[in-house]
Amino acid sequence: MKSASIVAVGNELLNGHRVDTNSNWLQGRLLRLGFRTCRVVLVPDDVEAIAAVLEEVSRISDVVILTGGLGPTADDLTRFALGKFLGRPLEFRSDIWQTIEAFFERRGLKTASTNRVQAYLPCGAKALANPKGTACGIAAEQGGKRYFCLPGVPSEMMAMFDDSVCPELTADGQTDVIEMGKVRCFGVGESVIAEKLGDLMRRDRNPQINTTVHGGDVLLHIVAAAPDPESAGRLIEADKRLLSELLGDAVYGYDDQTLPEIVGRMLKEKRWKLAVAESCTGGLLAKMITDIPGSSEYFWGGWVTYSNEAKIRDLGVSEDLVSRYGAVSEPVAAAMASGAAQRSGADTALSISGIAGPEGGTPEKPVGMVCIGLFFQGRTEVQTFRFAPVGREAVRLRASLTALNWLRLQLKGLTV
Amino acid sequence: MKSASIVAVGNELLNGHRVDTNSNWLQGRLLRLGFRTCRVVLVPDDVEAIAAVLEEVSRISDVVILTGGLGPTADDLTRFALGKFLGRPLEFRSDIWQTIEAFFERRGLKTASTNRVQAYLPCGAKALANPKGTACGIAAEQGGKRYFCLPGVPSEMMAMFDDSVCPELTADGQTDVIEMGKVRCFGVGESVIAEKLGDLMRRDRNPQINTTVHGGDVLLHIVAAAPDPESAGRLIEADKRLLSELLGDAVYGYDDQTLPEIVGRMLKEKRWKLAVAESCTGGLLAKMITDIPGSSEYFWGGWVTYSNEAKIRDLGVSEDLVSRYGAVSEPVAAAMASGAAQRSGADTALSISGIAGPEGGTPEKPVGMVCIGLFFQGRTEVQTFRFAPVGREAVRLRASLTALNWLRLQLKGLTV
Repeated sequence: MKSASIVAVGNELLNGHRVDTNSNWLQGRLLRLGFRTCRVVLVPDDVEAIAAVLEEVSRISDVVILTGGLGPTADDLTRFALGKFLGRPLEFRSDIWQTIEAFFERRGLKTASTNRVQAYLPCGAKALANPKGTACGIAAEQGGKRYFCLPGVPSEMMAMFDDSVCPELTADGQTDVIEMGKVRCFGVGESVIAEKLGDLMRRDRNPQINTTVHGGDVLLHIVAAAPDPESAGRLIEADKRLLSELLGDAVYGYDDQTLPEIVGRMLKEKRWKLAVAESCTGGLLAKMITDIPGSSEYFWGGWVTYSNEAKIRDLGVSEDLVSRYGAVSEPVAAAMASGAAQRSGADTALSISGIAGPEGGTPEKPVGMVCIGLFFQGRTEVQTFRFAPVGREAVRLRASLTALNWLRLQLKGLTV
Repeated sequence: MKSASIVAVGNELLNGHRVDTNSNWLQGRLLRLGFRTCRVVLVPDDVEAIAAVLEEVSRISDVVILTGGLGPTADDLTRFALGKFLGRPLEFRSDIWQTIEAFFERRGLKTASTNRVQAYLPCGAKALANPKGTACGIAAEQGGKRYFCLPGVPSEMMAMFDDSVCPELTADGQTDVIEMGKVRCFGVGESVIAEKLGDLMRRDRNPQINTTVHGGDVLLHIVAAAPDPESAGRLIEADKRLLSELLGDAVYGYDDQTLPEIVGRMLKEKRWKLAVAESCTGGLLAKMITDIPGSSEYFWGGWVTYSNEAKIRDLGVSEDLVSRYGAVSEPVAAAMASGAAQRSGADTALSISGIAGPEGGTPEKPVGMVCIGLFFQGRTEVQTFRFAPVGREAVRLRASLTALNWLRLQLKGLTV
């Protein structure tokens, strides 16, 4: 297997300001292309230091990916460091300059003179297009080793890697490939899953199975090694089937599918419309649903009834109910779901009311307590959950996912 | 200022499975002790590789912190690598072995023989106590450089650093401390800022100023070195004032303040209530506002009018307007803002309607085009923006922040 190194450039990566997540993403991509990452180095914005790191990692790698330091400001020094390491002067490339000017013109802006530096490349290097920004990437080769400089902004870096670097590395010809797949579960603990899987999680098994947890989501990562992508893919598929049988309804999807996406697909198949009424999640549930392109096909819309007044006026929740039971209560959550369904005419509706914290908790209604309502087939049901009070964001995420998962299970019950 | 390097050991850090967050935490701690992190290296579980990295980083660092690879299993190799690099054999330390046995005994368990390896240290090295686990840490000194091996489990690593490493480094007598501050801007490009700052961004200036960008947010990081925290703090404060004067209204906050937080504070001061009406952002704007604890004091609530029907029914947007100009248009955005203000009785209201993509763009209304409406002091204004079509998430984030920033500027205008 060929080897790769990643060099992440930027003072902010070394003074505690930002966690480097680019390298993690790149490792996965490189693995799939048959490159094992043997080193990741974070280095400050300093020409000598970056060049010294290139010296070190070039000895042990077939490919070196650099991220960051391609912008127009004085602390963007990657191009100079690459030139120094390669022993090649930088040259002004008018074709790149024209691309940068065109980028600003399309936005009705004048190009700043500071952007001029972005048109300089080490002699003999190739520019990599950046459809999302002004910083073009750089590709260079020397002594049989390949060097790619990508922007530090994750979205630009990812697009440029997939568009420009990936094809070049694929052409290189690989030895063993690694394929990865995921089985996604909701509503069961990691230790329960570990018990059900038992021997399948052995370290020396191929594929290897690892678990990670996030906001109630348990992900099973399947990592298969094989001589070719097809064989690796077959191993992954077999494991997906096996894990799905073992875990049943807890499995909601595979690979990069999300719960909002899966629920969206189920709604679309039924030609149903969903409406939501949110209190403590404050728009998060609607945001997660509309993260999915095309969600307008099945998402009617929603209410963020953050104040009691909004609940009463917009959803027709009775004032009496709110004052008698409080905004965070099963009767109010039920009235919110019914109200949302009625006012929208949607086929199904979800409501959430709870205490996200950090303030507002009481002994009977502690932080983390959330009531979820579901209007489904003409009936409204309601459930109360007590999530661990591990932070406002976590409670809100957990509540939104739990609501979606409930709807998923109900929709699934219909199809069975 | 003294320099530190961090070496994070573990295959899982190089195959895309786990993001190394330990190093980020350590950087902040080291800075406060007067050590600037000059390198972070992630290296696989391999004795030769770890020793080679130690060779490299010891040349440029006064202190090297290693994390991970101290466990009892076959892939835990850090102690062997340290011994190899220092040129010292490992010796069995019965005092450590007794501590490990005691750890298991307290839990009513028998010590596994595999744990025996954890009692071996390079000759002359010191053990660091681990109150949270079996892996003791290692401290060693050679050629005036100091080496500390800590466990990879974040909670154990942090406790051991604070309990055992911190006092040793403090005792070293520090030269300089580092303090950090941020100035946060919105609505101006990084290159424009670079031009305005000019010489202030010189690499050899103290404080050093670095810029990073995220979703239209431009952050200026101020990193000051001084003999004591007070002097460093004064340097930071002076730069905050200087940058604020240079950048004027573009500056919305400092340090960890966010735009939703700043706008919330302004609304609270005025005792105003805000309502929102969202189409393409689908709840994101409301979610960002309600991310802030206590937002119920100034946030009335909102509508996610994702369908035209919702816009018409819930906000009173006229059907004629929607069919004549389309949902993404200035007249509809204006009607959404007015409708939200009217129906809620809130003092001010924001509306957003746009094309988030990836589908749905046309030549006249391309992906990234967003109309934002603002009801403010009895009048509704509307603006159209054309954001770079760099992805659904980015367009939605940019639109939400732009809406909040517009409201901020209007509120600011009132106070001036």
